[in-house]
Amino acid sequence: MTPAKYSPVTERTVLDLAALVGKSNVAVDMEKRIAYSYDEVPRFSWDREYIAEAVVFPETTEHVSAVLEYANRNRIPVTPRGAGTGLSGGAVPFAGGIVLSFEKMRRILELDKKNLTITVEPGVVTAEITKTARQEGLLYAGDPCSGDASFVGGNVAENAGGNKVVKYGTTGNSVLALEAVLPDGTVTWFGGKRRKDATGYDFAHLIVGSEGTLAVVTKIILKLLPLPGKVVDLLVPFPDVASAIDFAPRIQSEGKVIPSSIEFMDGKSIRLAERFLNTVLPYDDAGAHLVIQLEGNDPNVLADDMERIGDLCLASGALEVFVADNKTTSDKLWKARKCLAEAIMAFYPKYSLEDLVVPTSEIPKLMAETTRLCGKYGIEEANFGHVGDGNMHVNLLFPEERPDWHDIIDALLDELYDFTASIGGTLSGEHGIGLKRQKYMCRVMDGAQMELIRRVKLAFDPNEILNPGKMISCPGRGE
Amino acid sequence: MTPAKYSPVTERTVLDLAALVGKSNVAVDMEKRIAYSYDEVPRFSWDREYIAEAVVFPETTEHVSAVLEYANRNRIPVTPRGAGTGLSGGAVPFAGGIVLSFEKMRRILELDKKNLTITVEPGVVTAEITKTARQEGLLYAGDPCSGDASFVGGNVAENAGGNKVVKYGTTGNSVLALEAVLPDGTVTWFGGKRRKDATGYDFAHLIVGSEGTLAVVTKIILKLLPLPGKVVDLLVPFPDVASAIDFAPRIQSEGKVIPSSIEFMDGKSIRLAERFLNTVLPYDDAGAHLVIQLEGNDPNVLADDMERIGDLCLASGALEVFVADNKTTSDKLWKARKCLAEAIMAFYPKYSLEDLVVPTSEIPKLMAETTRLCGKYGIEEANFGHVGDGNMHVNLLFPEERPDWHDIIDALLDELYDFTASIGGTLSGEHGIGLKRQKYMCRVMDGAQMELIRRVKLAFDPNEILNPGKMISCPGRGE
Repeated sequence: MTPAKYSPVTERTVLDLAALVGKSNVAVDMEKRIAYSYDEVPRFSWDREYIAEAVVFPETTEHVSAVLEYANRNRIPVTPRGAGTGLSGGAVPFAGGIVLSFEKMRRILELDKKNLTITVEPGVVTAEITKTARQEGLLYAGDPCSGDASFVGGNVAENAGGNKVVKYGTTGNSVLALEAVLPDGTVTWFGGKRRKDATGYDFAHLIVGSEGTLAVVTKIILKLLPLPGKVVDLLVPFPDVASAIDFAPRIQSEGKVIPSSIEFMDGKSIRLAERFLNTVLPYDDAGAHLVIQLEGNDPNVLADDMERIGDLCLASGALEVFVADNKTTSDKLWKARKCLAEAIMAFYPKYSLEDLVVPTSEIPKLMAETTRLCGKYGIEEANFGHVGDGNMHVNLLFPEERPDWHDIIDALLDELYDFTASIGGTLSGEHGIGLKRQKYMCRVMDGAQMELIRRVKLAFDPNEILNPGKMISCPGRGE
Repeated sequence: MTPAKYSPVTERTVLDLAALVGKSNVAVDMEKRIAYSYDEVPRFSWDREYIAEAVVFPETTEHVSAVLEYANRNRIPVTPRGAGTGLSGGAVPFAGGIVLSFEKMRRILELDKKNLTITVEPGVVTAEITKTARQEGLLYAGDPCSGDASFVGGNVAENAGGNKVVKYGTTGNSVLALEAVLPDGTVTWFGGKRRKDATGYDFAHLIVGSEGTLAVVTKIILKLLPLPGKVVDLLVPFPDVASAIDFAPRIQSEGKVIPSSIEFMDGKSIRLAERFLNTVLPYDDAGAHLVIQLEGNDPNVLADDMERIGDLCLASGALEVFVADNKTTSDKLWKARKCLAEAIMAFYPKYSLEDLVVPTSEIPKLMAETTRLCGKYGIEEANFGHVGDGNMHVNLLFPEERPDWHDIIDALLDELYDFTASIGGTLSGEHGIGLKRQKYMCRVMDGAQMELIRRVKLAFDPNEILNPGKMISCPGRGE
């Protein structure tokens, strides 16, 4: 199964790895190998099994360096892995080899209150960072929906987005510096505790979102912000998808405020959340909900903002404006929003979770085309996402098993991706390309761009040991 | 003078270029060649003359593409040039060849109110973008001190900073997409009108700050924001440099607000501005001034913020808090801050304008060391800069001509750069490396990083025709 350019993991390899990182940090039993070979993309999405030959659990940067130096010398593929919450198959060991799991590198190394930074290892759970910062009156702005489980290293690898991108940007916007191990084992730092830097190419942010294909990140310095004094969530039901979607961009342009979140859920998604959480949500018969989060230090201003945005909603066809201004109601609302991917996985035997991003003004067209295509191919849809930044999770759902589901998905995605590209959009806003979308890269990238990706990849990783088969098809694939 | 790997510009070349872009868009007279061969780094900084062999003025992307394709095929160096306001020699034609001046590509192509973007050509003056956005009630957050003259293309090439970085980030934070011409003439787009993107490597932001060494930018899509309703500037004199510098980070940590600017001027700088502008500034005998800009939509909140920050200033040793809440006083204040580089150029026969950036907490150490070194080498200093983001323009000044000034600068910078690196800082926060600082790159980059810069450069520009001699020393330098 290993492509010819790579060497297999042998008994000798396992002994060598054990000598480098300790016996207890190397696993080769089939149960572990399988457990560490998938993320949240369901196995049925792949045409064959992709199984790690060994799982290594580094405890230090030195461990990572030693493993990479060894793997590079011996041409063994290495796939870095966070918590496995990814939605693009980014951590799937396409070419076998070693999966490098970061669960043992989970220390928060420093919170620097003077420079407003936090330094962490890649295996720290995202929510731990938020919590640690909050205890010091500071905000970590990264907020992926999977933040209670995801590792920050995975957030960096995929440039994760989430619920606060409209105001604070994606994970990359919070990254100031990375300690990274290059494929030959060299340890270096890109960036620093510096708010700006015009010294050489910006490799720190090239590595962010590179899906573990260029270098392996071992420490991360993140920017923190003053914690807003008060946060309010508005849940706003609309009669139909179109009225909610049309309204969303007006929050900024006419409401004269940059909310920290503008989230969208269609009616199907609302009812999925109710079923999954076994709860009742307000206006659950609405065509769509927006969740609008406002932040501020002054309660009066926040109240004014809330009233202005609320009035704008009601004047634009909203059925109601619910204010969640305490932790209980706010938690309930966000639990509903954040459970949606899980809910789909629980209730549908076959599905494809998409991550399209378009200019915000084009969201209505994207929604209309999605509905048209789902009608054409006779499948269900449930759509939700970060409408404030043009990122829509279009979800293609099969309520029942059917043998041709994969062909239908392929045919539908062919049309949907081409349409997305035609309106200035692209394949992924925050989940990444990984294994799931690499065959579609040529739909949105021209030949020159594909060639540049290939060349930059080789500039960092000449032997192509790092996460082969991701982002663009790899030469070792047997093509 | 042309390094061996490159071909000289001949009469034939000039005829060919004229055929590609029109005769009136090619200049070879010595006056023009010299005029387009310098930026704001004074000629006396270089050990020899660097003169373009031809200056080309493209009017369209097609012109740029044709010139690059020709130059690449014939191994003629090409140095892209904005308005020549750069402070690192980035636009100096180190290896001769063609200077590509963008003054004729100065159209604002679109202001998209739905997506809050503006699309411009690289020759648009930065202030024109600010003005155009403002007329539509929108903010373009890029605000370099040279914005009234600089071209936005140059801002992108150097990842220019300026006065609003502490809140809005550098030019790169406003860049959504670039149309770029690769050295072989291929025209492509990196990014799009998308607020996020996890589709392939982030080449758009790799090109930002790459000093014209990877590709030539021909169109830029910039992000706009809602215009804040009201802006207030505070001018805060302090008795000495240390008290101003120590106080600056507390504006955010204790003041619980992110100002749009936190600028610093030492006493020498204040008096330089007075002399240059022939004016009197308040508290001109103070040891240092801070300029703090606050923005907001609600006048009451802004008044509260202002009072809170003002009280904090006074409790921390400030001599006074002047409020500039109208255009006249605000303009006067910013004119003083923005004229400083020019003032130095006017009054000192020899100088070096530096652009150090350190973790904000280390600014006091940097200032103390600067003063120590200037004392040791017997020269003057005037320091000002963007203290809110740790970026200090340390300026080394010779009040009189002296033959050994260059040796003194070299010896002082040797020590100063090493010290800066030792406290987590680096060579440049916003001016770039260019020709001025490339020999110091190895002080802040290890061998692996230098090698990666070289490889990525070659991945984009295998024949090294784009802006040779910048950022890292070029193989054609005769070394």
